[in-house]
Amino acid sequence: MARPSILVTGAAGFLGRRVASEANKQGCRVIGLGHGQIDVTQAWNRDVAEWHQGDVTLAALQACAHDVEIIFHCAGSASVAHSVEDPVSDFRRSVDTTLAVLEYIRLSKRNIRLVLPSSAGVYGHAAAGPLLVSQQPNPISPYGVHKRIAEEICESYATQYGLHCSIVRLFSVYGEGLKKQLLWDACTKLSTGNSEFFGTGEETRDWVHVDDSARLILLAARHASPLCPIVNGGGGEGVAVRDVISVLAAAFPAAPPIRFSQQARSGDPAHYQADISEAGAWGWSPTRHWREGVAAYANWFLEAAG
Amino acid sequence: MARPSILVTGAAGFLGRRVASEANKQGCRVIGLGHGQIDVTQAWNRDVAEWHQGDVTLAALQACAHDVEIIFHCAGSASVAHSVEDPVSDFRRSVDTTLAVLEYIRLSKRNIRLVLPSSAGVYGHAAAGPLLVSQQPNPISPYGVHKRIAEEICESYATQYGLHCSIVRLFSVYGEGLKKQLLWDACTKLSTGNSEFFGTGEETRDWVHVDDSARLILLAARHASPLCPIVNGGGGEGVAVRDVISVLAAAFPAAPPIRFSQQARSGDPAHYQADISEAGAWGWSPTRHWREGVAAYANWFLEAAG
Repeated sequence: MARPSILVTGAAGFLGRRVASEANKQGCRVIGLGHGQIDVTQAWNRDVAEWHQGDVTLAALQACAHDVEIIFHCAGSASVAHSVEDPVSDFRRSVDTTLAVLEYIRLSKRNIRLVLPSSAGVYGHAAAGPLLVSQQPNPISPYGVHKRIAEEICESYATQYGLHCSIVRLFSVYGEGLKKQLLWDACTKLSTGNSEFFGTGEETRDWVHVDDSARLILLAARHASPLCPIVNGGGGEGVAVRDVISVLAAAFPAAPPIRFSQQARSGDPAHYQADISEAGAWGWSPTRHWREGVAAYANWFLEAAG
Repeated sequence: MARPSILVTGAAGFLGRRVASEANKQGCRVIGLGHGQIDVTQAWNRDVAEWHQGDVTLAALQACAHDVEIIFHCAGSASVAHSVEDPVSDFRRSVDTTLAVLEYIRLSKRNIRLVLPSSAGVYGHAAAGPLLVSQQPNPISPYGVHKRIAEEICESYATQYGLHCSIVRLFSVYGEGLKKQLLWDACTKLSTGNSEFFGTGEETRDWVHVDDSARLILLAARHASPLCPIVNGGGGEGVAVRDVISVLAAAFPAAPPIRFSQQARSGDPAHYQADISEAGAWGWSPTRHWREGVAAYANWFLEAAG
């Protein structure tokens, strides 16, 4: 039997690569669409059978997705700060690409399943305690608003046209290879002897390893339906930024003691912890605990920088 | 003192024309942008000092809005049925145009006020009783979803960048000149001796005359702020479709007795009645009762068709 074809948009991105790798491992033929150059020295390229470079538009999808059974739409914006500086660009990356994928599936008249990785950023200001998918989104940055809008058009197409969709709201995805965001910035600082950080250190984030995230996204394809289920993807634990940086700092013995600015950054909510019971009901659970995974990240950083 | 300049997008549309007229009456110099031809035999043209034909894009706004103090964004989609047939086109008309207006104001670095006419369609499936702006939107058609998304990006720009915005959720806007939707379709049927109508007749709608709507939209500019207040624009009364058609039918004495198909149309909620207390707190109230206004509409139809 021929291997099923699947499409990963943003397949050259941090999450997209791991989704492509996991799909390949599970026996799929992976077609990739997005920005980025093929680099044959990188392992992830061996996971992608066919690579299409370009924007995620209806025309691009019509050119490359004609025989796929599932689309994992990993393309999209990934920076709160950028979304504040250039909201229209952020909107195009998160919303327009999602609309193109949905419209492609609708017009194809084939039962292509769609998994939309979304973000905990849709919750925005929330009360302390685990965030439930049933609670009302209240995003506070253009990034979070646009992720929520992408979810809304996904729900709308699922309801209106019977498309089979599911949504995974990812919390703080991390792992070896991620060269931005808190862990990267903190390692970069610590490696240069800078131990001053934004915030109070008491802010919490819920860490989920990219390999666990990719497994959940693959699993979500099985649950895609016109009901468009939404699940959280997190470790299920709210971890203080101070604790995460302490684990990193153990790999940088020359760095001075950690200090926090006590100033919050605009658009950053104070507390994030995922309720992961829906993903649990699908049989998923995270395999990498943040303490081990973050220590491994610091070691990778030292090797990559060395 | 020079008259303040204001921009009306969609100024050749049913609502846009009345907003332009009301703004002109209140002493503004009206610039119009949108589709449609100038027809010098029509009275509304005299209300528009400057007319720019074309799509509502950032480039078009940069060409025509450089000295305006208020933008009334009356352009946008206006058909649930069309939104189901072509959701991307509906999205472009409702969402992309709103994004262009917001981005124009942000980049202008001027304190231009924005009024966004929205729709009761954002409420979607709702319990019986007056609809409150505080309740959670639950749109059921692409049209309603896209109107809600336009509201969300408006709220996002107001919060994030301090833009002065307000939103008016209009219920069933009607008035002489409207050549589509329930009243037009019903008059067209009745005039040809057809008295068969969709639905049960017990569905309720809340009627608001376009002249009352235009006054509320002008008033909303005074209340535009970074808090982006939302008000309902309706008559405050849930009127059964059967009762509205009965008033129309009085103008068509040759038509047979009214009958209903008992079949609901997809995307049409069963009951709409506006809570208009927020607009009331601004000092607005409707001046045209539906019974008198709908009878006047039927007379206009007979004259226009004669």
